[in-house]
Amino acid sequence: MEQHQPTLSRPRSSALDAILGQTFPLLDDGFVRVIDYLGTDDSVVQAARVSYGAGTKQVSEDRGLIRYLLRNRHTTPFEMCELKLHLRVPMDCWRQWIRHRTASVNEYSTRYSVAVDACQTTRPDQWRSQALDNKQGSGAVLGPSLGAQLSQAEAQFQAAGKALYHERLAAGVAREQARKDLPLSTYTEAYWKIDLHNLLHFLALRMDAHAQAEIRAYATLIGQQIVSKWVPYTWEAFLDYRCNGMSLSEPETRLLALLSQGKRDEAKRLLVELNWLTDKGAGLKESREAGEFRAKLSRLGIEAPW
Amino acid sequence: MEQHQPTLSRPRSSALDAILGQTFPLLDDGFVRVIDYLGTDDSVVQAARVSYGAGTKQVSEDRGLIRYLLRNRHTTPFEMCELKLHLRVPMDCWRQWIRHRTASVNEYSTRYSVAVDACQTTRPDQWRSQALDNKQGSGAVLGPSLGAQLSQAEAQFQAAGKALYHERLAAGVAREQARKDLPLSTYTEAYWKIDLHNLLHFLALRMDAHAQAEIRAYATLIGQQIVSKWVPYTWEAFLDYRCNGMSLSEPETRLLALLSQGKRDEAKRLLVELNWLTDKGAGLKESREAGEFRAKLSRLGIEAPW
Amino acid sequence: MEQHQPTLSRPRSSALDAILGQTFPLLDDGFVRVIDYLGTDDSVVQAARVSYGAGTKQVSEDRGLIRYLLRNRHTTPFEMCELKLHLRVPMDCWRQWIRHRTASVNEYSTRYSVAVDACQTTRPDQWRSQALDNKQGSGAVLGPSLGAQLSQAEAQFQAAGKALYHERLAAGVAREQARKDLPLSTYTEAYWKIDLHNLLHFLALRMDAHAQAEIRAYATLIGQQIVSKWVPYTWEAFLDYRCNGMSLSEPETRLLALLSQGKRDEAKRLLVELNWLTDKGAGLKESREAGEFRAKLSRLGIEAPW
Amino acid sequence: MEQHQPTLSRPRSSALDAILGQTFPLLDDGFVRVIDYLGTDDSVVQAARVSYGAGTKQVSEDRGLIRYLLRNRHTTPFEMCELKLHLRVPMDCWRQWIRHRTASVNEYSTRYSVAVDACQTTRPDQWRSQALDNKQGSGAVLGPSLGAQLSQAEAQFQAAGKALYHERLAAGVAREQARKDLPLSTYTEAYWKIDLHNLLHFLALRMDAHAQAEIRAYATLIGQQIVSKWVPYTWEAFLDYRCNGMSLSEPETRLLALLSQGKRDEAKRLLVELNWLTDKGAGLKESREAGEFRAKLSRLGIEAPW
Repeated sequence: MEQHQPTLSRPRSSALDAILGQTFPLLDDGFVRVIDYLGTDDSVVQAARVSYGAGTKQVSEDRGLIRYLLRNRHTTPFEMCELKLHLRVPMDCWRQWIRHRTASVNEYSTRYSVAVDACQTTRPDQWRSQALDNKQGSGAVLGPSLGAQLSQAEAQFQAAGKALYHERLAAGVAREQARKDLPLSTYTEAYWKIDLHNLLHFLALRMDAHAQAEIRAYATLIGQQIVSKWVPYTWEAFLDYRCNGMSLSEPETRLLALLSQGKRDEAKRLLVELNWLTDKGAGLKESREAGEFRAKLSRLGIEAPW
Repeated sequence: MEQHQPTLSRPRSSALDAILGQTFPLLDDGFVRVIDYLGTDDSVVQAARVSYGAGTKQVSEDRGLIRYLLRNRHTTPFEMCELKLHLRVPMDCWRQWIRHRTASVNEYSTRYSVAVDACQTTRPDQWRSQALDNKQGSGAVLGPSLGAQLSQAEAQFQAAGKALYHERLAAGVAREQARKDLPLSTYTEAYWKIDLHNLLHFLALRMDAHAQAEIRAYATLIGQQIVSKWVPYTWEAFLDYRCNGMSLSEPETRLLALLSQGKRDEAKRLLVELNWLTDKGAGLKESREAGEFRAKLSRLGIEAPW
Repeated sequence: MEQHQPTLSRPRSSALDAILGQTFPLLDDGFVRVIDYLGTDDSVVQAARVSYGAGTKQVSEDRGLIRYLLRNRHTTPFEMCELKLHLRVPMDCWRQWIRHRTASVNEYSTRYSVAVDACQTTRPDQWRSQALDNKQGSGAVLGPSLGAQLSQAEAQFQAAGKALYHERLAAGVAREQARKDLPLSTYTEAYWKIDLHNLLHFLALRMDAHAQAEIRAYATLIGQQIVSKWVPYTWEAFLDYRCNGMSLSEPETRLLALLSQGKRDEAKRLLVELNWLTDKGAGLKESREAGEFRAKLSRLGIEAPW
Repeated sequence: MEQHQPTLSRPRSSALDAILGQTFPLLDDGFVRVIDYLGTDDSVVQAARVSYGAGTKQVSEDRGLIRYLLRNRHTTPFEMCELKLHLRVPMDCWRQWIRHRTASVNEYSTRYSVAVDACQTTRPDQWRSQALDNKQGSGAVLGPSLGAQLSQAEAQFQAAGKALYHERLAAGVAREQARKDLPLSTYTEAYWKIDLHNLLHFLALRMDAHAQAEIRAYATLIGQQIVSKWVPYTWEAFLDYRCNGMSLSEPETRLLALLSQGKRDEAKRLLVELNWLTDKGAGLKESREAGEFRAKLSRLGIEAPW
């Protein structure tokens, strides 16, 4: 191994050093700040060269090695980098965030201290309708007059919540109990430290179109404003292989092979056989999985055979 | 190894089987139910005999081996058991619960479904004052007339929160956004699965007198009503070694040795030297650490030398 | 939530119960045995219905829900099942196995007990050559007379290792030190407990063609003989979506779209632009990534444009 | 919260910077090198002040806060620091090391590369006898002439192992298979990254007198030469509260209370009642637990009542 020579200084990223401590504002009163980090793209490469050997040097330069690692799910070298952020997030959003278990967290304590004096507020043009095609998501924005009513009701309720909390404190109620009815929109703060492999997993899930808008805003900011500067090769590979690629299941692969070879009728028979298309008298009905496949075909410029 | 003979059936605990699916009520509207489990005290013993060898058989019977493991922090055999619970918990309490990362969780989703229609309510005699000697805790209960006022204000606010939430849903707001101002007292439900080692760690922290009353109630119920029945030897050892024992630091050990040998003056000099006792003119002042030591001496029936 | 009714008995899998404790032999002297388990396909469904809501019932029956979860990487419901195995594995193979950190392990201790008295042996027809196209893998089997020589040398060395170990023990050397020169081929035993999500991750990596033959044999056996019986819907979905599907990167998706639309020249230009094809005078040279793409095209029945 | 002001530079430890990349030799051919780190004692304090509130400032200065955290097992602030080492360790020792799962690891691959060309050797005066009182440990060193014989046999066997490995490679055997009989004494190398909380746990277990001499040497070096320089307050508190303190079980606490109050007969009756002392005709026999208690009494300068 050629790692014996002394390392004289810690790896650093000038682009990240330039924004250390800078506050990136978000939502009406949230923020993200970089507090510290460990490692760079070089650290990923260094670790990979130990595990995957000197021989990988012939493959290519660092960028190519990082792309190779990400493409082939060799995830451990990415654990060799850490990012530590200071966050200010509504508790409702934090409830989703904290489900990512492989991170270190110190959250602001409302047992020791009075709660952060701010709730996330919604502008009249920010109220979203329930999605019709998706049990969990949002659809179009609601109209301006309805939005105005909703924002006003929100303001009243948040003011009442704040008053109730402070009345309790004034009456001598313990902080740990007084907080019990704070709205989920109340902001909290935390230090959050995570390694790059687990951070990419967080970003893949939370930058996704199915993630809730609020946490998606945080994830997108962390990715585009911070990770892209810190580890540019890893970020580029992450976009190419994890975010913007396409996954095909075994049946989809078979169907695509048939379509690529012009066997549209055979593909259609397979779709029926798989129960992806069913004929209930009133024409063909596609299953959820067939709908997903049709969207992939459309991206490939291939017309669906149904 | 002598484990080669076939195991013909899964280990089971009759005492736990007897309460499978039973609802243990808690707080005003919470509960705990055992859904499933894996292993028993025997599984701990079986795993230990592999790792610590056939030779440990001479030490003693199973109970003794389990006590030995717990006493000496040989924790891996306790990972060989799992408990799976169904919980109903106020979100405020759940925020503390979910900080234990080494568990598997599926929480009820208020993106997919309408939120649980219940908030944790506080009876007039349950409002606790802020502790004076402890930044994070509660002290005595507040008086009845103040308590009645607080409970009334709580009821009004929770009703307003409920109305707001349903107005939003009726106006067509997406569930994921409508929930943003639900009070932290709103109940949530979850499946929670954890191995016995990590469960004991949870219980040690959350049954502790410093834990908040609400989560302490859950932890105590899980320990006393469920774990004690499931793995009785482990539970007994846990109480003897983790909950009801005493930890002495290096300085405390030195001080106790001096006191045990009647060298009270020498102990006092050491206390001053450690800065645990300081004389600021108006008599000796004890540090926080000295206060903790005095409490331990008192439990041992030894008079503090200051 | 509709989970309130008491569960009267633990979920069980008859097909797995039928093989509990049965020894599945492997390599020359290894084995796998199922000791216990928690949950079934039903437990995955039960957990998913809590997290993803009652609404998912309309999507489909249980099989469809499990396929949906696996397809969309909703991994937490799969953590609700656990499998506990008793393994006998060469230490060389165990060194790879133990890198999977999210499992509970109790390994046979050669500090407490005398080491397992068996080394993995290689038949003359089992010696593999170094792969030429793959720095880490094996190629074709070596010839019979060379194989015979290698097996004979192996037998001699293993006998010498065994003699040395026992001479040390006889001389009174501590077991923990006497073991220091045991060959990596020495068998070890362990209890290994892992949840279904992490088990599938282990299987995806270790059943893969790039995994070393020995651990691949274990993973394949665990998958095909055990997991397929225990959770048949999950196993089927795992094969369709994780093992036998196809992943396309962002550039591959663009290239495939061009080829699907008959724009072969444009595709070729893009390949050159990406540096996947380079012309160094002596004809086009494809990069590693281009080679991987060509293999995918071949599976789809599409001729590569170079 | 008062953390809003920009942090302009990364926290650094001058004492650790001074030894970055330096090789600390160990055993006959092992080493430890610091590659990088994240955070210092200050980072622990910063995280604690968020979680435990501004109020804790009154308790004391940073050193006092760190001692308070360690004493009361508030472990999360210690996760805010990371240490990254480059190690060279015999595989036998590495087998124990890798059991600590909460670390990031990239080990040198003997699939990709030829194995490290060195085995751990034992000097004639380093052979340890089997402990008589301890199934897992070592006792006194064996005599010089026996030691010389053992070292000679070791050298012969290791040379044979090396020859066998290289014969296989020369015969064209794949590296992944050729390595199968390498002695466990063969050195391996790895990058190992771990947070401070988990590092302290590793050190507490592996610096302990019951740990095997080889891994104890590594742990002791890492603690005394590296951690003590990096986070001096944490190191001091760790020694006082984790390493050099004393844990008393519930029965031991009761017994010590009786002894402290001069009730020696009552203590003795309790010992018999607990089955810690049994009279089998030929005088009192103490249990293992009684023996452990006697050792604690001796450290406190208290004579055992039996």
